[in-house]
Amino acid sequence: MAKRLHALAAHFRPPPVPTTQPHLHELDPAYFLPRAAAIEPAAIAIVHCDRSGATVQRDYFTEADRARRLAAYFKRRYTDGTKIGILAPNTPMFFELIFGIAGSGRIQAAFNYRLSPVEIRTVVELSAVDVVFVDIDCLDLLKRALGEDFPNLELVVDLDSEREEDLRDFRAAGHKNQTYGELMASTGLDKTPFDKLHFEDQPENNVFALAFTSGTTGKPKAVEYTHRGMYMAAIAGLTESECNHTDKGCRYLWTLPMFHAVGWSYPFAVTAVRGTHVCLRKIDYTLIWHYLTSGQGITHYNAAPTVNIQICEHPNATRLPERVLVTVAASPPSPSLLKRMISLNLIPVHVYGLTETYGPITRCYFLPEWRAHDDDLQFKKMSRQGHGFLTAQKARVVKPSLADKGELVDVERNGKELGEVIVRGNTCMKGYHGDEQATQKVFAGGWLHTGDLAVWHPDGALEVMDRNKDIIISGGENISSVGVENVISAHPDVVEVAVVGVPDKVYGERPKALIILRASGIAKDPATLKTELIKFARGRLGGFEVPREIDFVNELPKTSTGKIKKNELRNAERLKFELAQKALATTSG
Amino acid sequence: MAKRLHALAAHFRPPPVPTTQPHLHELDPAYFLPRAAAIEPAAIAIVHCDRSGATVQRDYFTEADRARRLAAYFKRRYTDGTKIGILAPNTPMFFELIFGIAGSGRIQAAFNYRLSPVEIRTVVELSAVDVVFVDIDCLDLLKRALGEDFPNLELVVDLDSEREEDLRDFRAAGHKNQTYGELMASTGLDKTPFDKLHFEDQPENNVFALAFTSGTTGKPKAVEYTHRGMYMAAIAGLTESECNHTDKGCRYLWTLPMFHAVGWSYPFAVTAVRGTHVCLRKIDYTLIWHYLTSGQGITHYNAAPTVNIQICEHPNATRLPERVLVTVAASPPSPSLLKRMISLNLIPVHVYGLTETYGPITRCYFLPEWRAHDDDLQFKKMSRQGHGFLTAQKARVVKPSLADKGELVDVERNGKELGEVIVRGNTCMKGYHGDEQATQKVFAGGWLHTGDLAVWHPDGALEVMDRNKDIIISGGENISSVGVENVISAHPDVVEVAVVGVPDKVYGERPKALIILRASGIAKDPATLKTELIKFARGRLGGFEVPREIDFVNELPKTSTGKIKKNELRNAERLKFELAQKALATTSG
Repeated sequence: MAKRLHALAAHFRPPPVPTTQPHLHELDPAYFLPRAAAIEPAAIAIVHCDRSGATVQRDYFTEADRARRLAAYFKRRYTDGTKIGILAPNTPMFFELIFGIAGSGRIQAAFNYRLSPVEIRTVVELSAVDVVFVDIDCLDLLKRALGEDFPNLELVVDLDSEREEDLRDFRAAGHKNQTYGELMASTGLDKTPFDKLHFEDQPENNVFALAFTSGTTGKPKAVEYTHRGMYMAAIAGLTESECNHTDKGCRYLWTLPMFHAVGWSYPFAVTAVRGTHVCLRKIDYTLIWHYLTSGQGITHYNAAPTVNIQICEHPNATRLPERVLVTVAASPPSPSLLKRMISLNLIPVHVYGLTETYGPITRCYFLPEWRAHDDDLQFKKMSRQGHGFLTAQKARVVKPSLADKGELVDVERNGKELGEVIVRGNTCMKGYHGDEQATQKVFAGGWLHTGDLAVWHPDGALEVMDRNKDIIISGGENISSVGVENVISAHPDVVEVAVVGVPDKVYGERPKALIILRASGIAKDPATLKTELIKFARGRLGGFEVPREIDFVNELPKTSTGKIKKNELRNAERLKFELAQKALATTSG
Repeated sequence: MAKRLHALAAHFRPPPVPTTQPHLHELDPAYFLPRAAAIEPAAIAIVHCDRSGATVQRDYFTEADRARRLAAYFKRRYTDGTKIGILAPNTPMFFELIFGIAGSGRIQAAFNYRLSPVEIRTVVELSAVDVVFVDIDCLDLLKRALGEDFPNLELVVDLDSEREEDLRDFRAAGHKNQTYGELMASTGLDKTPFDKLHFEDQPENNVFALAFTSGTTGKPKAVEYTHRGMYMAAIAGLTESECNHTDKGCRYLWTLPMFHAVGWSYPFAVTAVRGTHVCLRKIDYTLIWHYLTSGQGITHYNAAPTVNIQICEHPNATRLPERVLVTVAASPPSPSLLKRMISLNLIPVHVYGLTETYGPITRCYFLPEWRAHDDDLQFKKMSRQGHGFLTAQKARVVKPSLADKGELVDVERNGKELGEVIVRGNTCMKGYHGDEQATQKVFAGGWLHTGDLAVWHPDGALEVMDRNKDIIISGGENISSVGVENVISAHPDVVEVAVVGVPDKVYGERPKALIILRASGIAKDPATLKTELIKFARGRLGGFEVPREIDFVNELPKTSTGKIKKNELRNAERLKFELAQKALATTSG
């Protein structure tokens, strides 16, 4: 090992520096990988069950070496600033590309493999990638998306298997593309002089990644991430999620897709403390519980509330002997979910953010005095989005009507006045790629406008009530769909609930609840249960907030990050309403 | 509280921003204080036993408010970049000044109160301060230092007491100076418009503090710290020392003087996680054990090896039920000290750094595989200085003869070849204040030259063997004084040992040991014990490394940070040698 280590250290040696000021050093989170390899080369960086069913386990020396070889390859093959696409689940290739691309000064653009071919085509065009690294399971999707229209787009296919027969089958199927395995095999150390093989310092305000918004409010946008921004996000993530317990270590389970906001910065945060990345090719709740309960020592995972609901509801769910820290974000978790998670020793680190903020930018900080509250109040406080993150600036809530014009006037801190959340600081994006107009709009007045509506509590914590487009306006009153959901999800028969505004001839809109039931609820008479649920809600909400209509459903449409697609639900309800109106007109006519 | 909080939040509201890019935000660790107050205003920021014996305990709201008022006062009274001196032990005033000065864009210059009047005069002149905030206990020292020569230098005196009689006594003694209490009382909110009362953003590469080198190698130099550098140091400190355990909280005992390297960044690191600063006016080992054992929940302290030796040797020393994390630096700790600390549940976070690096810049990362080693090897590995810190770049060891010319050639990684430690990254100083020549010299080749000699081990960890000037050259062989000390300190009769080179007519120099004994050793016959110690060393060192001369002493001269002043010991030995030579010459003549 000593000899290999020495060789590695030589490759990562920084280049001669012209400046005489050693402190002028660019912030770059890619450095965490060679650093981890230098400190603890034998620490396990990644564990993965590949497509052939074999377990891949590689140490930090190996992963740093592979990323370095990729970086050298990218520098040889592509010009500075070339965009490199990724379409893959959470695999070692994805992890290595994140570092290899960042370390080479090229730009990664990771696509969501749950998008439709049309949507994939949109993000491929938007990012103008020269090459896409694609997992074999995503190849069909990509080919359907591209058609015959991108003849010069290079594809590198990851078979995610080291079995020879898998490569043979791939060729037998007529595929001509280079595979990721072949590419890695061709990037030997011998091909490039030693002193070229380090991660070169990149200007910290250069873009290193494009991340795509999930598109709940329209066409996805390409968000520009800088090296510096990601560095500050990663440092905050590792501190806020307490990845740095040296006595416990950090074994991070990759339930969150890496393609979303570069995994909320956790590829870098976990690597900064030489933690182990435990990959998951897909969200499989049985597998998640297997990892949590089979002595694998999982200490952390990140997931949206909807994913956590499924984890908590799973038949294998059991209280864990050691706490697991769970960073929860993407949509507001209900107090009942937080309570259920804690009962299983899944300790929520409740954060809030956007693709535009590298993931988390606020956190609900638990205050010791809350322990004196009863459960209801305690969990209600824990479900608020709180205050600016460690490396972020203060988040504010401002009057929405003025905010659009860039006039930023704080709402009252009374827990009632609804305003828009705006944020600032290093972990805000550089801008929307190639869309100066949208950038100017979202940065009105020098703050990033989140489009999320919130109240500001007297203690300074903010609480997100809704996406701007999800708020229900009924008879001139604002109804927070999240607020109604939080109440209904506390009912023992309810697994998950989405509340959306449906058209109403009198009130303009009124709330409707779509509910996934627990077995206990399914066993009941639907009409009786609906009456019971409405009564339950009436005791806890203002009269105008209580949904008069309830549908029991088997599933809810969700984005890849687990946000409920309320626009889809709303559109479906609107369509139903229009059809009913037409039918009515026809009948009347 | 709600009303007060709202008012505070208004004061700290960032000013209108001309830029449209919210991510372009200057890094400033001063922000951690208003942030802490916004999140958890009632959290205890500081606990202090003042000079009158009263306990002062203030929450984050109050401390943020006081620092903000100071910042506003400084902005009114002094021009941008004015230097503000501090001569005080660890008190709330010191803590508040650190933030108030940084937040105002002025520059702090904290002096070591253990310096002589002549030395104090040197640092006052070097920093060109307009005002000095001085603790009443340091006032005589300062006045002796200044004499009649600084008629325009303003003094603000901290009585560190709220008793009226103490102010009366102060006036009765003829003092005319404003007191800190009076100043704070005059900085009311009503005096300045609300919207001026925030910490304004400062350009991150501006200097915010001058820190003085401890002067073990000559006249002290004024080291320039930037806002950005301190931010990166603080973030690293809080992560490496695990101040962010939300379940344990952070109660930091201020054994380390705040004047040294701005407390190694811990005023900011602890504040970033809303920890409690427990002040100590002086190092008092009985008091330290009182804090550690009386249910005060101390979780962290930082101290040099010599201070830790005294803590471990104290009659009240006892194994603590909960671990306390101890950041150890300033000189290399011996393996036996690390072992003794762990036996008391004082868990060392062993770091290495300089005033020029904001304190720590490398850390000995404990590797799980070391658990398989026997104690001797495990503690020996733990006593190495390791690898670059979280936010630092890789530390290197280079050939010293070439290093001076800026030619940076790595030594072999064989654990044997001696070289100079050089470092780079954001946590390197901006330069020596007003000394371009010294700055150019220490930055030769674009790296900061530490002047410390080390070996580089095959696993990439570095181990400091000596200060450049402390290395003993005997018959052409290098002897590491630290290496010899580590061996002798493992002897059960030894509390502490310093090894220095003394003149030798044959070998040029030879090692001599000055030893403080335990009671067990004092009880023995000195001549027999010396023979025993030499035999003990002979079994563990090369023959030329064994000191042939040993003195038993009651104390060793130390700097304020606990470094043994080897230059003093060396000079004394040289003087003795010369006198002996003269006497010999006289006798012969």
